[in-house]
This record gives sequence, structure tokens and C-alpha cells, in this order.
Amino acid sequence: MTGSAALFTDRYELTMVDAALRDGAGHRESLFEAFARRLPDGRRYGIVAGAGRLLELIDRFRFEDAELEWLREHEVVRPETLDWLADYRFRGDIWGYREGEAYFPGSPLITIEATFAEAVMLETLVLSTLNYDSSVASAAARMVSVALGRPIAEMGSRRTSEHAAIAAARAAYIAGFDATSNLEAGRTWGIPTMGTAAHAFTLLHDTEEDAFRAQVAAFGPKTTLLVDTYDIAQGVERAVQAAGTGLGAVRIDSGDLPTVVAAVREQLDGLGAVDTRITVTSDLDEFTIAGLSGAPVDAYGVGTAVVTGSGFPAAGMVYKLVARRNDAGEWVAVAKSSTQKLSVGGRKNAARRLDSTRTAREELIFIGDGPEGEAEFEPGDRLRPLMVQLMEGGVADPAFLGPAGTSAARAHRAEVMQELPIEAFRLGRGEPVIPTSYR
Amino acid sequence: MTGSAALFTDRYELTMVDAALRDGAGHRESLFEAFARRLPDGRRYGIVAGAGRLLELIDRFRFEDAELEWLREHEVVRPETLDWLADYRFRGDIWGYREGEAYFPGSPLITIEATFAEAVMLETLVLSTLNYDSSVASAAARMVSVALGRPIAEMGSRRTSEHAAIAAARAAYIAGFDATSNLEAGRTWGIPTMGTAAHAFTLLHDTEEDAFRAQVAAFGPKTTLLVDTYDIAQGVERAVQAAGTGLGAVRIDSGDLPTVVAAVREQLDGLGAVDTRITVTSDLDEFTIAGLSGAPVDAYGVGTAVVTGSGFPAAGMVYKLVARRNDAGEWVAVAKSSTQKLSVGGRKNAARRLDSTRTAREELIFIGDGPEGEAEFEPGDRLRPLMVQLMEGGVADPAFLGPAGTSAARAHRAEVMQELPIEAFRLGRGEPVIPTSYR
Repeated sequence: MTGSAALFTDRYELTMVDAALRDGAGHRESLFEAFARRLPDGRRYGIVAGAGRLLELIDRFRFEDAELEWLREHEVVRPETLDWLADYRFRGDIWGYREGEAYFPGSPLITIEATFAEAVMLETLVLSTLNYDSSVASAAARMVSVALGRPIAEMGSRRTSEHAAIAAARAAYIAGFDATSNLEAGRTWGIPTMGTAAHAFTLLHDTEEDAFRAQVAAFGPKTTLLVDTYDIAQGVERAVQAAGTGLGAVRIDSGDLPTVVAAVREQLDGLGAVDTRITVTSDLDEFTIAGLSGAPVDAYGVGTAVVTGSGFPAAGMVYKLVARRNDAGEWVAVAKSSTQKLSVGGRKNAARRLDSTRTAREELIFIGDGPEGEAEFEPGDRLRPLMVQLMEGGVADPAFLGPAGTSAARAHRAEVMQELPIEAFRLGRGEPVIPTSYR
Repeated sequence: MTGSAALFTDRYELTMVDAALRDGAGHRESLFEAFARRLPDGRRYGIVAGAGRLLELIDRFRFEDAELEWLREHEVVRPETLDWLADYRFRGDIWGYREGEAYFPGSPLITIEATFAEAVMLETLVLSTLNYDSSVASAAARMVSVALGRPIAEMGSRRTSEHAAIAAARAAYIAGFDATSNLEAGRTWGIPTMGTAAHAFTLLHDTEEDAFRAQVAAFGPKTTLLVDTYDIAQGVERAVQAAGTGLGAVRIDSGDLPTVVAAVREQLDGLGAVDTRITVTSDLDEFTIAGLSGAPVDAYGVGTAVVTGSGFPAAGMVYKLVARRNDAGEWVAVAKSSTQKLSVGGRKNAARRLDSTRTAREELIFIGDGPEGEAEFEPGDRLRPLMVQLMEGGVADPAFLGPAGTSAARAHRAEVMQELPIEAFRLGRGEPVIPTSYR
């Protein structure tokens, strides 16, 4: 695999381009929109993530010699289309919700304006990034809200594919997680990394004492010792023996956590290790974290549940052509109409209506109806605009890229959470916490 | 991101290496094992996938200057350990189940023998590849078995992250899918690719007729026309008008499929398009495919359900130290013992016991007990060995790599399916179809 992302796409994107360039319709200016028809069953809100990664991938979406040769050899498109692909780079405009923003059914998360051929090709990439990253961020945000300020680390790299792991670490961080175990996520996105030792390290040594002493010798007493390889109470005792009462933390990865954590806290205090923290990491999700709210836990580590979207590993977003120009140059709203899978045609803009306490009350989607299809509204104290320009003429706004863009998204999420009605944070199943209205 | 996969790992792997090299235990010869404690809830068998990708990733698991510099800057390990990492390449042996093999709780899917420091570092990579790929393959195999020989294409790239999409296409192909929409999977793994057009192509044109004519002009009458953008019956009529009765196929992506498919078949036959095939692609999974077994469907396309493991997006595999040498050079079996998360220590070998009809009856796991910890058994007619050597002295067996390795895995799965008891193919929840026994 080269650095090109051009083949990270479905064959039918290229065959559509091929046929549409042939009959000329491929040059029609078009507007595509990515949105979710619904939230995952019972969720009250979703959190957008993926757009920052998407912008960087679009920049790598170029057909180099290797890609063109493969397409030629496999006769995916006509030779004329290969020439067009060789010159292709995305030159259109992208608007969308900021990463870290809350979203609801119908929220126009990304709109892409370009010629049909330019824009249709991005479908798979848009959806792969938004669907996976938003799935993780939406699950992670629920965990953060029930952790009540205690730090959470993402450590699920081993439960998702090796590149997805990096995206998951980033999405969880945007949603309020504090760190990740994944080193590449640390390097690429500037996320703090964490981790000390697994059970294998203890089992490698002849005794648990040997293992603890080796770890303290290497990292000092402020390290985190994993105490549940053999017997937890014995492990805690040996940990304090090895590191002293200044031991940084103990980690517990198994057992009936509320009971075990209380017993370990009592034991640590009894041994004089009153500042030693307790980290728990045993198959946690938002429900088990909520169940530990009364226990003396100091930090959580979450794996499987966060990287798989806690039951909803794909956010269900779709990418639809909603408007295009006709031969007379006029914008025409379009939508599929045969079935239950309805979409709303036309250019959209969106705002969140807030009440006098700055609590969100409604997701307002304005549908363009003017001659140019523009959807206008008057922003104000009570109407917070939701869409920002992510890319102009094929150039990404650098504010949304790299570690800085990731940090900004994380900060934005924290602000947005303040606006949501308190019912948003109930874990039980229910309707979206605010309704979506079309204007 | 460079071509190095060295940071696709959890920080604690490197901190364990650091501490273990410091006290010398890191040089102990060790044996790690990857296995699943259980199958996903109610599944009867699992299908192994990921090992071929793992072997290629291990080859890219090298610390180049960029990785070393980042680790130095972030003080992840001591300078002496950086020197060791700079020289690192995996030089050990790997045995495991072939890709495409069926597996059961406790099956020793991968065993890695090397020094502790060399082998522990691969944990995240081993589990990321096995967990995700086997999750997809296990779900895909169930879909293949209920499709009753009708071809199935994987088209879920948009429902998983952009690199995971490529792995998913490969895993589904190993499990018996026939094609993928993902072009990079076609290029990297030699999987046939498919796809013609989405609803956007129809909506781009002024009329459905225009769209169909454009597609037929580009690809000839043997193309597949998507007929459900507006009204299905009208779409079918226009499709045959545009392509003639030699139309290759129509695709239906919505509606109550058993009813719709029957009506479309009748309509096509009435129009004389008796050889025109019907492809369906509407949020299918193993249950809806089974529900279509009596309908005149010719081919299926599956997206979300296959790339997300149909409810089980991670296969739940773990990677455990099961044996290591002590200072006297003797092998010692080791296992965590504190909790419900039990593992069985010791070197393992595995065979499937077949009865006189060559039907599988038992998963036999032989635990090493000799001085060298070897687990021996006498293969024979009724005892099929399950483990093969995947890598020797750090060099992968080329038979398991690339497109050829992928094809071989697909062929192996087809053979293995012949052995499973018929109850394996029931979709309903139940116990693993054969028991696991330790010897």
C-alpha cells in the first residue's frame, strides 16, 4: 500500500464517475450531504468525530501511477477517465459540524459542493471516517459523563483493527477521554499515552515480589502496579512493600469491582498508602462505570466497549446527493422517493435553538429554497450556528487538522455538553433529547 | 505515519520491555498464546482470520529513526532500551491455526516463542488483527452458509474505518464471500471487485431513463441497474427499456424484500428479461438472508452486518504468557490465578477429532508436560492436526502471504465447513458445536 488513499473507495464510485463523465452529467455542480437518519437505538445524542481525519485523507486522495496502472489493468474505467483521474484532486468546498459537536437525526454533518464526479468519489472515505469515529465518540461521551470527573483512558487498540485503533483513540479523546494506550495515536494526534505492565510481566518473574521490585526499579515508586495476577489482597500488600507508601497506583483488572475496590482502598489506607490511587480496567462500559460511581475508584481504563461503539460500531450515516444544477444552471433539490429510507433534498444549514438558560431545545435545519438554493437564517443569542467551513477550494482550514484540531474538538465538546438538557445524560433508552425541525 | 508499524502498539508493551531488559528477565525464552475464552454469545463456531495480515505487519514492526526519536522525546523507555529497539526485528517462531480454520473456546490460535521482550511487544498487533478479522470472518461464514450457494459481495467499507474496510473485505472473502466493493482490497489481496452505481447517479440525471441509458452506454446491457430510486415497478420497466431483455441484473436496496423480489422476478419474466438477475443489498445480515432463501434472489450484497461482526465486532481473543524458562533453563508453565478470567498455562498443540464420517466431534488441546514442555500427539485418520508453522526464526512462510495466502485460506475454510456437524449451521443461539477437551 502506498501513501495514496485513492483506492480506499468502492468500485461503484469510479464506475459512476466513468459513466457520468461520458455523458457530461459528471460536470454538473452538485451538493452531497452526510447525515444520520436516526441515532443508535435509545441514545439521546451523538458526538461528531472523523472530519479532521477526513480532511487529511482527502489530501492523500490522489491517483498516482500505481493506482492508475491497477485500474487500467483491471479495466475499472475507460482510458479517458484514467486521464481525468490522473489530474484529480478535490477542489470543492466542504462545510460541516465541528468535531466534538452534538448531533441528532437529520443533522447535516458534512456537505460537499463540487462537480458530481469530484464529490461522488469521496463517499466511501466520508462515511468510513464519520461512521466509525462518531460511533466511538458517541459511546465515549456517555462514559465520560458517568465517570463524574474521574479520568478515563482508552486502551482498546487490541479490540479493533490496528489502524482503526488510532482513530478510536482520537475519537475517544475528542469525547473527553484523558489518555490512550496507543503510541501511534500519541505520535500522530498528540494524545497523552499511558500504561505500565500486564499480567505477563508478573508471570515472567519467579515471584510477584520480583516483578514489582523490577518495575519499581525501572519507573520509581510512582508507577502503577497490577495487583490481581494471583491474590488481590496479597498483591496489594506486596505492592506497598515493593514501592513503599508512596506507591502511585494499583490497577485491578478483574473481580466484582465495587466490592474489590472498597476492600483495596481500605487495605491501602491501613498500610498507610493513603495517596495511592486505584485504577480499574475490567471490561468496563458506561453501565459498569456508572455502577462504580460510589466506589473509591480514582481512574478508569476502557477497552472493547469504547472502540466498538458500545453496541453500535457504525453510526449509520449516509451520503446523499441532495441538490445539483440542471443544464440551465439552476439548482434542483433531489431525493430518493421510493421507500422508507427517506431523505430530504436541498441545501441545508443548521442551528441549535437555546432557551434563556442556554439549554438546547431544538435542532433546526433550514432547507434552501432561493434560486441558488441557499439556506439562510439570522444567528443570534438563541440560535447557535452549527456549520463551519472545513475546506475551501480543496484547501482544508488548518484549524481542524493535526493535534491542534483534535484538542480544539475536545474543548468544543466540553462546551457543547454544558448546553444539553440534563436528560441527555440518562443512560437508559429514550428519544433524542431535542427534536429535529425542518424550516 | 510512516511505513513502520512499530507504534501500532500499547505503551505498556514497551515499558514492560524496558523494565524486563533492565532486570534481565526480558531475555528469558517465553511462549505466548492467543486464544478466545468463549465464542460470541450463542455462536456455534468461529472462523480464524488475520494471521496472514499479522505476518506482513510483523515484518514492518521495525523502529526507524522517526519512531525512536518520538520515544526518546516522550521518555517512554530508557536510552539503553532505545538501542535495543533500534536493532529489534522479530526472530522467533510462530505457530497457529491456518486462516479459514474453524475454532472453539480455548483453541490455541497463535503461539509465539521468542524471548519475553521480543514476543510481548507483538501483543497489540496480534490481537488487533485476530480480533477484528476473525470477528468479520465468523459473521461472514454464517451468511455464506445461509446463502445456499448464491454469491455474496461485501460492500461495507463505509461502515467501518477506512483501513479496517480492507481487512474486512479480506476476512469476508476468506469466509466464502465472492467479491468486495473495496478497490484497495482488490489491489492488495487479489479479491474480485464489483459495483456499478448508487442512487446519486440516478438523481444526477434529469430522469431515471437518462441515468439508465447513460449507464448502459458506458458499460453495455450486461450492467446492473439500481431500480429503486423512485418506484420499483417503473424502475424495472425503464431498466429493460434502456438495456433490452439482455439486461444483466437489477439491484434492489430497499423495501420488504421477499415480496418485492418476487414481484420484480415476475415483472422481469413478463418483460422477457428471463435471464436478468436480481441482486439485493438492503441492510442484510444472516437472518434476513435466511429469510430470503425461498425468494428468487440471485446475489446478495452485505454491508454493515459483515464488517461489524453482526453484533460481535471483536472476537474477544486474549494474548497470554503461558510458559517461560527459569534461570536454570527449564520451561515453567504459568497462568494468572486470581479470578474468573482463567487461562491454562503450558505449551499447547491441538487436533480436531473426527468420527468415521469425517464429522468433527471434539477440539482436543494437548498441554505440554515433558521437560521441554512439548505437547505431542499422534496425528491420524481421526485426529487432524490444527497447527501449522507460520513463521520460523522471524521469516514468514510465504504460503500464507499476499493474494495466494488469502485464496488458500478461502479454500481451506470450504474444506473445514464439510467437517462441521450440521448443527453448526443453525442460526439460533446455542453452545459451541463441539466441546473443547484438554489432554
